[in-house]
Amino acid sequence: MVLTKPKVVRVSDVDRVEVENAKNTWIRVLFSTSEAPTYAMRVFEMGVNGHIPAHKHPWEHEIFVLEGRVRIRVENEIFDLEPEMAIFIPPNLEHEYWNIGSSRARFICIIPVKPTA
Amino acid sequence: MVLTKPKVVRVSDVDRVEVENAKNTWIRVLFSTSEAPTYAMRVFEMGVNGHIPAHKHPWEHEIFVLEGRVRIRVENEIFDLEPEMAIFIPPNLEHEYWNIGSSRARFICIIPVKPTA
Repeated sequence: MVLTKPKVVRVSDVDRVEVENAKNTWIRVLFSTSEAPTYAMRVFEMGVNGHIPAHKHPWEHEIFVLEGRVRIRVENEIFDLEPEMAIFIPPNLEHEYWNIGSSRARFICIIPVKPTA
Repeated sequence: MVLTKPKVVRVSDVDRVEVENAKNTWIRVLFSTSEAPTYAMRVFEMGVNGHIPAHKHPWEHEIFVLEGRVRIRVENEIFDLEPEMAIFIPPNLEHEYWNIGSSRARFICIIPVKPTA
């Protein structure tokens, strides 16, 4: 149900759920697609050697790196991101993620509630 | 123009613009309402004693604190936030912000491209 009151969360208090079809990767949903009217906020955690295989979908991502080093492939381009860096990934482009650091990597990933394109 | 290719930004490379009608507060727009199809990503910075006066608007906020201590009032409720905490503020509720720490505070603030409610 869409939130009509403020909701405050602390990342460590939110359940950490393993991401299916990925390696050493977990998600915490801060504001879900059911709670949020327009866009949902999630925090991803990738352990050492974590990998999210190639996939695509008709909605964009806006990602902000909190910790560690993340390599993201979008179609034929490779981007290496670290904390204080963000990436916009348009809808319908294939993307893939690797933790390329020697410790865990974490990033915020925002998605729209409804497909965009 | 809405982005059709990936865009990567580093926060410190983005122009820091003073927020009008606020005290000691700046904004950096990572992905703007013109660039993003559904929701825009901005980073706010509040200096010591920074204050954003009460205001409201027909769209929600999703905020994630990166640094420092931020007090947020939403209508009659007060929330004190620190890094790794996030808040959802529904549309049309009056809200106000203070930096209550002894150093700068920074947070990501996401807004929809179009009014929600």
